[in-house]
Amino acid sequence: MAIVVPLSGDKNAAGPVSLDRLMGLVKDDLKAVNELIVKRMDSRVALIPTLASHLVAAGGKRLRPILTLASARLCNYRGDRHISLAACVEFIHTATLLHDDVVDESNLRRGNATANAVWGNQASVLVGDFLFARAFQLMTADGSLEVLRILSNASAVIAEGEVMQLVTTGDTETTEDAYLEVIAAKTAALFSAACRVGAAVAERPRVEADALESYGRNLGIAFQLVDDALDYSARQATLGKTVGDDFREGKITLPVLLSFRRGDEEERRFWRRVMEDGEQDEKDLATAQQLMRKHGALDGTIERARHYGAMARDALGIFPDSEVKQALIEAIDFSIGRAH
Amino acid sequence: MAIVVPLSGDKNAAGPVSLDRLMGLVKDDLKAVNELIVKRMDSRVALIPTLASHLVAAGGKRLRPILTLASARLCNYRGDRHISLAACVEFIHTATLLHDDVVDESNLRRGNATANAVWGNQASVLVGDFLFARAFQLMTADGSLEVLRILSNASAVIAEGEVMQLVTTGDTETTEDAYLEVIAAKTAALFSAACRVGAAVAERPRVEADALESYGRNLGIAFQLVDDALDYSARQATLGKTVGDDFREGKITLPVLLSFRRGDEEERRFWRRVMEDGEQDEKDLATAQQLMRKHGALDGTIERARHYGAMARDALGIFPDSEVKQALIEAIDFSIGRAH
Repeated sequence: MAIVVPLSGDKNAAGPVSLDRLMGLVKDDLKAVNELIVKRMDSRVALIPTLASHLVAAGGKRLRPILTLASARLCNYRGDRHISLAACVEFIHTATLLHDDVVDESNLRRGNATANAVWGNQASVLVGDFLFARAFQLMTADGSLEVLRILSNASAVIAEGEVMQLVTTGDTETTEDAYLEVIAAKTAALFSAACRVGAAVAERPRVEADALESYGRNLGIAFQLVDDALDYSARQATLGKTVGDDFREGKITLPVLLSFRRGDEEERRFWRRVMEDGEQDEKDLATAQQLMRKHGALDGTIERARHYGAMARDALGIFPDSEVKQALIEAIDFSIGRAH
Repeated sequence: MAIVVPLSGDKNAAGPVSLDRLMGLVKDDLKAVNELIVKRMDSRVALIPTLASHLVAAGGKRLRPILTLASARLCNYRGDRHISLAACVEFIHTATLLHDDVVDESNLRRGNATANAVWGNQASVLVGDFLFARAFQLMTADGSLEVLRILSNASAVIAEGEVMQLVTTGDTETTEDAYLEVIAAKTAALFSAACRVGAAVAERPRVEADALESYGRNLGIAFQLVDDALDYSARQATLGKTVGDDFREGKITLPVLLSFRRGDEEERRFWRRVMEDGEQDEKDLATAQQLMRKHGALDGTIERARHYGAMARDALGIFPDSEVKQALIEAIDFSIGRAH
């Protein structure tokens, strides 16, 4: 059903496109974070650790807590508060994933059955609430009002972004600006908060905290743009994910938005039927992919991602060269390079 | 279908059974709380205030924020921090109601359509998340780590209680102790936290904070016990609520639990069929109510509520007599008196 949509090679890419260096630098800290996560998601109510560990063990890359750890290191932080705060970041992320899967009615995440598919929507909503509360307990124990401010603000913005996305679902008139606002809120807010927390524990000057926040924000936008392109790309299948989830859910992402705006009236009727009216048959995903290829919508999306990646890179310019700075820059290349 | 289950009169009741005195004492503060709630549930995403105000405007009694206001007054607090913290308490309560209605698949609350019935489960989950985050933003702005500790702990315990309730749904073997643990977590934790926050802003000695927490906890348990009895009582209909919601959802509450344990083997088969197997026909609610009457299960539930009410009353013993203390005691009588 799905056809291959080739993405043209990244002619500007240079150097290694992996998270290996970043992962290597924070390896010991990340081990401590993982141990704390397992310890703090425990509860006398057995279903809570069972369900939470399903998602936590399914193991994403832990990109967000890694950003907290690496940012703290970039700021020469020497204590251990970044461990529990990185765990907070991951708890907030996990809580939003649990609620997202309920909202999207998803059955698969990273090739595994979602928690809601196994234990039902009810348990997913409530365990998400528990993890969110747990994050605030951990932050309170840490005792920094600055960190509480950063992560409570991010949490409110994420929820706003998710509601915005819900409201724009199926609306082919969505502008690129509105789409950017959604992904800045639902994805980039936690990336930027994760980075800023690293500067906050190190008690660095505001200019450094702002720089790390800017890095995280632009990295998050680039990351989500690539995710949205991958959802229509054959590359996706090789990452163990299904192709076309966004399409079936009527999510208006940039590849759709560009195809709609670059297309003719007949094509727009197609997009309105499949997205607004939700009338899809088995050939429609392939048609959508053909239209994206015709209009260079995936390449255009990756091109936009490179723009934000460049902003993320320049945001780090005020920091002296170091291995961790280089690793954070490689994380940008990795996020964009996933498309290839 | 539903028949009248009379509850015998409360022979111990004395004095006014209303919240009038308590409401009168905190009237101006509550007005400020309501204004702050409306202001702080605003968002550039229009659906958020629309949905949130549906629930907030539907207007419960605002019992939980009133407890914060009255507790602060009992502790002779003279500032205005209790206003925003009472709003936090109501935001947390509203967030849990939104998620509860999704989990319970409820269509009616206080005689009005629930938010999930009007805007869907997805919006209810996400707006609940937003209100929860908003509460933590407000607490962070207040700046008391003690308050953050009280309310983040309560939030985690509430979520645990909701998951516990989910796990015991339909299980007729649930013990009274397990049931008490559920309602202590899902209901009483926020009552006790709401009261303790009042003592915390007044910076009173720990013994007074403990006393107010104990008052709130026992009042909360009594309140929930009466709610659970009302769900099977004709009195419920006069309060604008439907009868038998818990029954249809297979919730094991004390009236069921007592009827099951006091019944014979044939009756237990009935309870297992309707609760565990979820096989209910239109006559079953009436049968359940007859069995409750036969075994005095509703009176027994109210009797238990009186026990916790007495504990709540005695918890306030260390405070000198005052009008607000008297009003808090009347709130106990009101909570229990709702059954009549």
